Order: sequence, then structure tokens, then C-alpha cells
Amino acid sequence: MTQSALPESAMPAVPPRILLGPGPSNVSPRVLQAMMQPMIGYMDPDFMLIMDEVAELLKRVYQSGDAKTMALSGTGSAGMEAGLTNLLEPGDTVVMCIYGFFCERMVDMATRVGANVVPLRADWGRPFPEELLEAELKRHSKVKLVTAIHAETSTGVRQPIGELARIAKAHDALLMVDAVTSLGGNEVSFDDWGADYAYSATQKCLGCPPGMSPVAVSEQAIDAMRQRKQPPMSWYLDLSLLGNYWGWEGQRVYHHTAPVSMILALREGLRQALGEGLPERYARHARNAHALSAGLEALGLGCIVPAEHRLAQITVVSIPDGVEDMQVRQRLLRGYGIEIGGGLGEFAGKVWRVGLMGESSKAEYVLALLSALERSLPEFGYEVAAGAGVAAASDALKSEG
Amino acid sequence: MTQSALPESAMPAVPPRILLGPGPSNVSPRVLQAMMQPMIGYMDPDFMLIMDEVAELLKRVYQSGDAKTMALSGTGSAGMEAGLTNLLEPGDTVVMCIYGFFCERMVDMATRVGANVVPLRADWGRPFPEELLEAELKRHSKVKLVTAIHAETSTGVRQPIGELARIAKAHDALLMVDAVTSLGGNEVSFDDWGADYAYSATQKCLGCPPGMSPVAVSEQAIDAMRQRKQPPMSWYLDLSLLGNYWGWEGQRVYHHTAPVSMILALREGLRQALGEGLPERYARHARNAHALSAGLEALGLGCIVPAEHRLAQITVVSIPDGVEDMQVRQRLLRGYGIEIGGGLGEFAGKVWRVGLMGESSKAEYVLALLSALERSLPEFGYEVAAGAGVAAASDALKSEG
Repeated sequence: MTQSALPESAMPAVPPRILLGPGPSNVSPRVLQAMMQPMIGYMDPDFMLIMDEVAELLKRVYQSGDAKTMALSGTGSAGMEAGLTNLLEPGDTVVMCIYGFFCERMVDMATRVGANVVPLRADWGRPFPEELLEAELKRHSKVKLVTAIHAETSTGVRQPIGELARIAKAHDALLMVDAVTSLGGNEVSFDDWGADYAYSATQKCLGCPPGMSPVAVSEQAIDAMRQRKQPPMSWYLDLSLLGNYWGWEGQRVYHHTAPVSMILALREGLRQALGEGLPERYARHARNAHALSAGLEALGLGCIVPAEHRLAQITVVSIPDGVEDMQVRQRLLRGYGIEIGGGLGEFAGKVWRVGLMGESSKAEYVLALLSALERSLPEFGYEVAAGAGVAAASDALKSEG
Repeated sequence: MTQSALPESAMPAVPPRILLGPGPSNVSPRVLQAMMQPMIGYMDPDFMLIMDEVAELLKRVYQSGDAKTMALSGTGSAGMEAGLTNLLEPGDTVVMCIYGFFCERMVDMATRVGANVVPLRADWGRPFPEELLEAELKRHSKVKLVTAIHAETSTGVRQPIGELARIAKAHDALLMVDAVTSLGGNEVSFDDWGADYAYSATQKCLGCPPGMSPVAVSEQAIDAMRQRKQPPMSWYLDLSLLGNYWGWEGQRVYHHTAPVSMILALREGLRQALGEGLPERYARHARNAHALSAGLEALGLGCIVPAEHRLAQITVVSIPDGVEDMQVRQRLLRGYGIEIGGGLGEFAGKVWRVGLMGESSKAEYVLALLSALERSLPEFGYEVAAGAGVAAASDALKSEG
């Protein structure tokens, strides 16, 4: 066995970044520290107490009294796939409200499950029109599941979930909600909505590294899983087996080796979010996003989404004519250490996506980005009034005090 | 929204443990530190360099020149499921060599995929008899895949893989190898074996926290995936899509948000393993395991597996008659901070599993465990000659010194 030399430095540094893309966001120092704790066994009684605490804290951020909660050992996409794989059997009908890139990902996944997929496509950048769902559900004798995304990360739209849930319930369908970008930054009301399955991710508004998907499951969804004719196609994401490990039925049955450090990180992220106070945290996200919008508008950069439907976590802005997407993003990254996101799907090359989530939702980051844009955009042929963006954002921050 | 008070302490401590179970093992301080690095975007060009390095280091520990490598965003079980889901289509025949608990997990997963599963069951605690495979393959016109486990964590057997691979190749079948417990602690020779897909886990002999599954894939396996009639049932574990993100085809296409901190941890764990030197690392694992066996035998605790087939990473020992499994394990945990593992499946309650993997493979931990056993076992009715285990282990360490 020959081995060439290893790269020399003992621990090459990861460059520091201000992460204002669609996630991962910056991670809180307390959460980073939590991961430094010593390793512990995944069946250790002291670790079980930690898992109980995580499940309890998740109920609070999901605002649920009765849902079963846990964190799946995968990213947000694993939470999406787990819902579709566990709630659908081949041939089941699922009606999917489609208004962005991540909605389309759901179509792909549900098709692989062998479900009868009914995609209801509406415009990107606007909330999904509820009447489309109502009309479609009337056409079917039995719909097993309706899916929607609370905060479409590709478009920046905040979708009202309550009315979709009411329509789904009226037609005896389960409702699955994507809360990847909303949990911890926006009010997520699992019980009030009447959701049956919701999933999120750790790296957006919870201030943790990516790698886990916190989920909430209603009693009706658990009943539906119990009544399956065959087990889900995925053993790794089998929610019944995973629930047994998380103690949903009282005991703890080994499933797979839990990602201990990520669970310790999540616990700290949740404690920090709840310590800040959910209403205060939502208000912080809203305040900073409002300042960002004001600043961008002062630079002539228009938001895709009408103000009343805009997410606080992610702001989607049109790239001005003649400006090349990647050139600006590279300049921001290399010149200022700031990451923002590009567009996905039909928005690729046409928009930037600016995330202000969790630890990244800070007034100073809003101002840093606007300053960097003011200095960078003219280099690429787009003239702006120097200082206009920062001034508008500062005013907005002051007026909301 | 009412909220009861949070638990008071800002960061409750995780109790320190000597982890001598089947994993997670103790994590190297350098690896813990690596996770403290700042977050970075999963499409950041500087992060791409880190991913390239991880893929390259993985080729070295898998001892492969040409395999494609990456780390999946899930635990070792995700690596198992990814292999079966991507290499099998419904109706494909898979012949599974079964000689332990984790082999049976493969049967469950492959059944969910809809494959024609042919389990070849042999005794637990002994290597799988190769002639069984040869005889079975002769009965089929076309077998798509043969599966085997290099290091069965439930039994402690080291399975020779080369001969199984030769037989599989002779019958034009792909070979999938579980290297969860072997990679980094035992010689894993992906190319020399002629394996087509191998997967491992970060929390065993690589000294990292659990949460990722490093995989290696041969050109033949990639061809087989290209020729699928339909995509794999799992989008999250679709190896072709994941390979595109890891740059297997030259470019980088977004798939899901990579677990950045875990990848930073894995990089450091791999650098540390290769820095120690693979032959030196294997020798360390063998030396400490040998000392452990000598000590256990001196206490009258017999190993399940004959010496010549024993794994260095995990030693499976019979629980003496009349001694209650959990009482002893609880005493070790609560009295000495030492975790050892219990039995799984048909070995439940009958054996203990002692892991000496990665950071946990240390002479001082061997001596600590033997001392603790010498003091604990008499409390539960099993008399031992005090000091006999430690003396035998010390002698073994000296003679190999």
C-alpha cells in the first residue's frame, strides 16, 4: 500500500462567512460548543433524557400539545421523503399544491413511491390559490394526502396553511406541511392548522448545522401508518420504527445509531430559540427582513413577492437587466465574505435569494450586505446611489426600534 | 402561546464515558474541534475543495485507485439502504450471505425494494462458508447482486471477502460489502477484493461522531445504475444524483444541503487515520484486541468466535451462567463510566460486545474495563481471581510491545 503525503497543515481553516443564502445559516457559538461535548452511547440512559428533552422542545416550536416529535437522521429532504414514503402506499392518491422548486421535488419523490400523483401547478412567487385545491378534491372519491409548503425557499412566499388544512380535512385527507424554512422564524401552528405531518431542517431558523430533520406527526397520521398494507419502502426512514427508538410507545427499541453530536446541537439550538422567546424571535426575523426590503428597494432592486405575502426568512429579488448573477455573487463572497443564494428552476439566473435566518438574521448583516451591494453593483454596470440602501434600511430599523 | 419555564442550566453537561460498545466510539479531540469551525455554504467553492479532499482520503482508506467515493448524509444503515435501493430494481435477484443481525437487516431492506431476495443463512459466530454461495449461484440464471458483511458487529466475525467476490464475479453478479465496523480498523481492500459497492460509518474506527456513511462505488456498479429501467425508490439516497453533487461527473449539481459540520469532522478523522498510517492503525487495533481477549480468558469469559476469525474491533464474549446481562452493564456504566454493548437478535442476553475502535482502541481502556469487571462480577455471583485479567492483558501488551 503506497501512500502519497497528506496535505501539510494539521487543520486547514474554514474561511469565515456571513451566510445570507437559503441555508445553511450561521451557527450560534453556543450550538457549536454543544457539539464539542463528549460522545455518549445512543442507548445510554443519560442520552435518552436528552432525546426526551429534544422531543419536548420540538413540540413547543411546532406549537403542538399532542403531536409526536423527533429529529430524523438526515436533512430536510429526508423529512420530505419520510412523510411521502410513510403516508403513501403505491396507488394512493396525493394532491400536491405546487408553487416552487421544492414543491416539484415532492412530485419526484411521490412518483418514486408509486403514488397516484396529482400536481396542482400555480404561479411561482404568489401564494397557492386555495380554490384550486377545493375544486380538485371534489373530483376524487378518495385522496389520501394533500401536500403544501409553508415557506417556499425558492420563491420567498409565505403560504397560509390554515385554509388548505381546512379543505383537506373536509375531504378526509391528511395534510403534510413543509416547514423547512419556517420553523423557528415564523409562526408554525401544527395543532391550530390541523396538520398531520410537518418536517423541518436544523440549518435554517434554528441556528444549527445542517444534518437533521425535526418532524411532528399527528395521531391520525400515526393511525394511517398503522393501517398500511405493507411497510414503507425505506427502512431507514420508517417513522414507526424511528418512533419506537424515540420512545413514542413508551419503550426504546434500537433502530440505527443516532447522530449524537447533531442531537446535542439541536437541543442547544432549540433551547436558544425558546430562550429568546418565539414571538420575539419571529419579530426579529420580520424586522430585519423589512429593513432588507427597504434597502433593496432604495437600490432599485425589486422583490418578486408582494409585501403582504413575503417571508421574513428569505427575500427573493430580481437581478437587474444586464447584470450577471454569478459575477456579483462571486464578488460578494470573495470581496466581502458574504454568501447569498441564486435562483432555482425557472428562477435560475433571474433572482437572488437573501436569507436572514436564525443566527444570520441580524441588523448588522443587513447593513453589511447592502453596503457590499452598493459597492459591487456599479462594477458590473448597474449604477446605484451610494449609501441609499444602507440609509433606507437604517431608517426602517429605527422606526421599528 | 403559553410556555412553561425551560430547564435551568444553560448547557447541561453530557457525562464523560469510556465507550467500549459497538459504537459510537470515543471521538478524537481533533475531530471535535473540527466541528467547531464556522459554518460554510454547501456550494461554496472553498467547501468544494474540502469535499474533494474527503473523497480523495476515502479512496485511500478504501484502498482504491478508481472507485468513486463520497459520504452519504445518513448513518451506516443509510449506506446499506442506498446500496440495495440503487443496485436493485423490483424483481432483481439478490443472494444474501447471512451470518448475523445486520445481515438480516439487509434482508428486510431488500424485501422493501421489491427484489427477489435469496437469503443464505449460516451459523452466527463463524465465517460464512463460501461453498454455500457457489452452490446457490449455480442455481440461478441471473443474479444481480451478492451481499456480505466484512465485520459483523453482532457476532465479532471477520469475514474473508476476497473469495466471495471471486465467486460473485464468476457468476457476473455485483458484490456489495458492509464495511461499517471495519473501515479504518481492518484492512479494507476495495480494489483487490473486486467489490462494487462498499459502505461504512463514521462512528466506529474512523473516530468521528455518528451521522455519515462513507461509500465507494465501482465503475461496474455505476454502469448498472445507469442501466436502470426506473429511478431508485429513494430520492434522498439516489447515488447518481448524490454523485453529481460530489462531482463524480466533473460538475457539481445541487441535491440536498450537505451536513457541513459532519463532513468537516470526517475530513479530520480521515486525516488522523491516514496520519497514523493504516498498517500502524490496524496493528494497534489488533494489539489491543489481543490483550482484551487474553484478559477476558483469564477471567474465564470465553469469546464466541475462534481466535483466527475474530475481529480486532469488536470482541463478543459469553455472559457466564447465572449472571444477568443488564445488571453488569449498568454497574460498569454507573460505577466506572464504561459502556459495553449487549447482544442482538439470537445473541440478546447471552453475550456482551466489547468494541475497541478508533479512539476507543487504547491499552488503558482495556485495562480499565478488565479492572472494572474484576470488581463488578463478584457482586453478581461470579467469582474471579482478582487481578488475573489485568495481568494477562498486561503480559499480552508487553509481549507485543
